[in-house]
Amino acid sequence: MAVGPATLSEMFPVDGIRLGVASAGIKKPGRKDVVVIEVCEGASVAGVFTKNAFCAAPVVLSKQHIVSGSNRYLLTNTGNANAGTGKQGMIDAQACCEALAVLTGVSAQDVLPFSTGVIGEKLPVDKIKTALPDALSNLGDDTWALAAEGIMTTDTRPKGVSVQFQYEGKTITLSGISKGSGMIMPNMATMLGYVATDAAVNPDVLQSLLSQAADKSFNRITVDGDTSTNDSCILIATGKSGLQVDEDPALLEQFTQALESVMLELALAIVKDGEGATKLVTIQVETAASQKEALDTAYTVAHSPLVKTALFASDPNWGRILAAVGRAGIENLVLDDLKIYLDDVCLVENGGRADSYTEEAGQAVMNQENILIRICLNRGGVSETVWTTDLSHDYVTINADYRS
Amino acid sequence: MAVGPATLSEMFPVDGIRLGVASAGIKKPGRKDVVVIEVCEGASVAGVFTKNAFCAAPVVLSKQHIVSGSNRYLLTNTGNANAGTGKQGMIDAQACCEALAVLTGVSAQDVLPFSTGVIGEKLPVDKIKTALPDALSNLGDDTWALAAEGIMTTDTRPKGVSVQFQYEGKTITLSGISKGSGMIMPNMATMLGYVATDAAVNPDVLQSLLSQAADKSFNRITVDGDTSTNDSCILIATGKSGLQVDEDPALLEQFTQALESVMLELALAIVKDGEGATKLVTIQVETAASQKEALDTAYTVAHSPLVKTALFASDPNWGRILAAVGRAGIENLVLDDLKIYLDDVCLVENGGRADSYTEEAGQAVMNQENILIRICLNRGGVSETVWTTDLSHDYVTINADYRS
Repeated sequence: MAVGPATLSEMFPVDGIRLGVASAGIKKPGRKDVVVIEVCEGASVAGVFTKNAFCAAPVVLSKQHIVSGSNRYLLTNTGNANAGTGKQGMIDAQACCEALAVLTGVSAQDVLPFSTGVIGEKLPVDKIKTALPDALSNLGDDTWALAAEGIMTTDTRPKGVSVQFQYEGKTITLSGISKGSGMIMPNMATMLGYVATDAAVNPDVLQSLLSQAADKSFNRITVDGDTSTNDSCILIATGKSGLQVDEDPALLEQFTQALESVMLELALAIVKDGEGATKLVTIQVETAASQKEALDTAYTVAHSPLVKTALFASDPNWGRILAAVGRAGIENLVLDDLKIYLDDVCLVENGGRADSYTEEAGQAVMNQENILIRICLNRGGVSETVWTTDLSHDYVTINADYRS
Repeated sequence: MAVGPATLSEMFPVDGIRLGVASAGIKKPGRKDVVVIEVCEGASVAGVFTKNAFCAAPVVLSKQHIVSGSNRYLLTNTGNANAGTGKQGMIDAQACCEALAVLTGVSAQDVLPFSTGVIGEKLPVDKIKTALPDALSNLGDDTWALAAEGIMTTDTRPKGVSVQFQYEGKTITLSGISKGSGMIMPNMATMLGYVATDAAVNPDVLQSLLSQAADKSFNRITVDGDTSTNDSCILIATGKSGLQVDEDPALLEQFTQALESVMLELALAIVKDGEGATKLVTIQVETAASQKEALDTAYTVAHSPLVKTALFASDPNWGRILAAVGRAGIENLVLDDLKIYLDDVCLVENGGRADSYTEEAGQAVMNQENILIRICLNRGGVSETVWTTDLSHDYVTINADYRS
């Protein structure tokens, strides 16, 4: 199951970026499971990576290799996460980088490796090496959609977003693809995102823009609270449009907005394709005293199995939301000050069910595919939003049966 | 579903305690849903209560009323939690205490109220009042098993434990009952526990013994990570055996052991009857640097939907356990130092799958009904244990369908 339409929007080429896919037969014969993204010389490259203490080998290596101006290739394989593989995993990731470097005449240091798939299995390096010439032979700038499919694992649909905007007679393009079908499946090493633009952006600024955008998008989505060993998001600015973003405040603002909208849409595409998802749920915590308490509250509600099963059942079970807020660890929380809404329907005020509330009104919101849970703590001026899904029978089926 | 046999052990009477049950028809006609526990004069009474910021009205009132030597009745109703009911909830809880006080000639202050059931519905005070004379008329000291049934909600079986031990020719009895079928269902206000003994224990010592025993039992079990608005556990020492526990170190030690074993067995009975449970899972974190990191690790694994669905599938998916440990928030955790075992089967060492591991050995443990996950952090000398269940289709069914 998944929420909303499955169609991929039109993907605009980004000058300076070419993408190629191939089949290495890592997990399923014939499946496109190797993606090579070629980056022009001199591009700025920024990255954000999983905070899981146990990074997969490719994450460790990508963090070492990432240097703006020198990185020339992103190499992704699916079907095997090369995680929990010890020292051999590092050797294998490095071997893949070297193989691609030899074929393309760059240094292994210039290749960023990414893997997603089963944890704890040795990476089939030879299969990947064998597929590289094929991936290189079909490099193109109009292959974003193919690449979006090439990085899929249990995803039920490819995920890509592309926007263009005009500035002083020139066009800036941002195109991105993502994969992930739980915020994490440690076993499938969930979340990958690659975004490229033809804008020119100083590397430091690019890294800061990516980190900020990730904190409003990829870092605010959760399907099951698990965070992966392999999550990575890369932002590349080729500069080919000739527009230098960081030297023009008005352009910087427009670019930031475009980047954030692309990143958010890519992140929400992952939630909507969340394992077993039948609803896209937005949890907005308002009037919190701090960002921490806003996020603690939002995630406690987002991760509550009781709230999530009620959402699956389209049951406006406000007691479960209230109890989740109550255990979020917020000091001196006053029940009487709290308000909880489903869309515009007030569920809770004055310490109990709102007088104006009717089961019909709550039910009408719950029947929707997109649901907003709004929690007003009335303690300060901070707001935070996270996005999640419901917890369905299909979630259990997918995750109980995955390895078989 | 539930784990293990459903039989209730023999329940020994506790001198000074009488229990009576009645049907008030709160949620289902004919169901025993009101339980009165009568406490002799002069007994010590101790209590531990939910840490949820939003306590239900009866919890607020019980905390105000609890005074050793004066409390004479515990009044429990099921079918309605009297939680999220605002000021009216307090009025209603007080009214029930007053009604029982009038019938028994005590003060309302001497009655401790407990409610469990649906959140947010007004307590049917009149129905409860009407049932009180019936509950009082069948007070007896051999009705522990009936009381264990009377406090059930979605529990599939009554839960009771009773032990006796000899000391200097005299017998000390401890008997207890509990209810709960998820660590919490905020909607059903999960966990109640009542334990009584005929030992004599100074009130301060009794409170400290209860708190310590709860931290090794009721506070270490989790089904879904949600904590209730109504959780309460009461320990009563009637003193009728004539043995003063706190004045004799040897007796104190024996009593403490007996109490802890009763509390742990009552707590594990709740886990084994956890919603949809097919496994009892013990998560033991060893060689941690602090209690906090031991518990953070244990609960992160216990609450991971991916670990829990793998347990349901009897899948020795060690990558999911590893990834959960990795996101437990432990600073400077070194993957190479970590060891993870299923019972005695080593899954993870030296940064990856243990060389000695075979899928057959892991599978053999996973096929069991009782599973031990042992995590050695190799950072210090602290150990902690928590108990949980798997996440099954039945969990989703029970919680998605509960209100309908």
